[in-house]
Amino acid sequence: MLARNALSALKHGLTNTSNSRLIHSSGVLGTKVAVVLSGCGVYDGSEVHEASAILVHLSRGGADVSMFAPDKNQMHVVNHTKGEPMEPNRNVLLESARIARGKVEALAGLKAQNFDAVIFPGGFGAAKNLSTFATEGTAMSVDSDVERVLQEFHTAAKPIGLCCIAPVLAAKVLPGCEVTVGSDQEEGGRFPYAGTAGAIEAMGSRHIKKNVTECHVDSKNKIVTTPAFMCETAVHEIYDGIGTMVKSILGMAK
Amino acid sequence: MLARNALSALKHGLTNTSNSRLIHSSGVLGTKVAVVLSGCGVYDGSEVHEASAILVHLSRGGADVSMFAPDKNQMHVVNHTKGEPMEPNRNVLLESARIARGKVEALAGLKAQNFDAVIFPGGFGAAKNLSTFATEGTAMSVDSDVERVLQEFHTAAKPIGLCCIAPVLAAKVLPGCEVTVGSDQEEGGRFPYAGTAGAIEAMGSRHIKKNVTECHVDSKNKIVTTPAFMCETAVHEIYDGIGTMVKSILGMAK
Repeated sequence: MLARNALSALKHGLTNTSNSRLIHSSGVLGTKVAVVLSGCGVYDGSEVHEASAILVHLSRGGADVSMFAPDKNQMHVVNHTKGEPMEPNRNVLLESARIARGKVEALAGLKAQNFDAVIFPGGFGAAKNLSTFATEGTAMSVDSDVERVLQEFHTAAKPIGLCCIAPVLAAKVLPGCEVTVGSDQEEGGRFPYAGTAGAIEAMGSRHIKKNVTECHVDSKNKIVTTPAFMCETAVHEIYDGIGTMVKSILGMAK
Repeated sequence: MLARNALSALKHGLTNTSNSRLIHSSGVLGTKVAVVLSGCGVYDGSEVHEASAILVHLSRGGADVSMFAPDKNQMHVVNHTKGEPMEPNRNVLLESARIARGKVEALAGLKAQNFDAVIFPGGFGAAKNLSTFATEGTAMSVDSDVERVLQEFHTAAKPIGLCCIAPVLAAKVLPGCEVTVGSDQEEGGRFPYAGTAGAIEAMGSRHIKKNVTECHVDSKNKIVTTPAFMCETAVHEIYDGIGTMVKSILGMAK
């Protein structure tokens, strides 16, 4: 029989002893990396598998990870079985906590001075909650904290990683930078959002074509990007591409 | 400028060309594996990183994956930043679709005859939505479709994988089996839910102690289990433990 306190812990979903640790704490000071989430679920938040791959690779690399998300409503909530909006709205921070196992802080508190690098997973949340790219394209606005965070890390010459659709954030806030979202051609459905490459160029940045298992490193700006789910492919290839991005970020952050 | 149809695709979150593929389709018939989800988020659904790790390892192993979840309300919804219940309720299938990128079917339609193996990720959803273990311990009931699915795969001698808290489902439905949830001792907070091991024994099954990077194989019953987040450790070790489980499942399913 399960002890009463264990049952209570199971019911409430949190234990006293659990700090919901996702990342190894070795005692040695690891590279401090901030991960910025935008909800939980590809169509209105962070892409779950991209976020998870980032955390697994950071964990293996010995990084000391903190997660952040804007404390505000989502643009909308999408029924993921139908691709249609549903009610009621949800809070970006609260939904991000599903990926972060509870340990996520308001993005307003993220300062570049406290970290060595920052990484943005993709998912439509980056184009809906961190910016308005999904509805306004090149005329988009960027969440004020996202804009500030990108500028702070860039000014401090600390590496910035972005994947999937998230590179549009750097393309807008840091014009002149080089990023990849895979291909500028649909290639028979392999890159269904290939038009994004043109949008990046239109915002004054440069799109570099890359395979899904690769990343592009803009050494001058310390910006590392990988196509991830901009490419319709097997999830282990996306996992591997994100691995090259994280390895590059940790290498530059040393 | 993004083309109008691309913008529309971004806004609605689905494209015509996209089948939300998570798994590589090589043309060669892969091992057909069903993955049973229980929502999206550790405290009231499937543990996101466990589910993702299962999918990455299955993808790398060339499996042909289909995802399922019960089409019913969750036991409750947990605010993951506070560990407290919140309103309104959510549907298990709809939330599972956040992990499945839209491609998830009702569990009622899962028949063992159509698959070579089945895998259950953990997360409190397994103890709240797939069974009542979180509130009733050893007196728990199991969702009727979950019970049927476990019995069907077992009768057909097809492998069953379960991780984290999910092994309690096999312990209840298939008494006499061997499973692991890590340790039967808390070990200073490393196994905060260690009491689960005693519950497994009380339900007539056998608990086998294992490290988080290992799995236990009950060869007689073709049941493979790994502790995953029953252990408070780094996420890459959980990813690796799940890798051993998936590899074992695919090996047995051949």
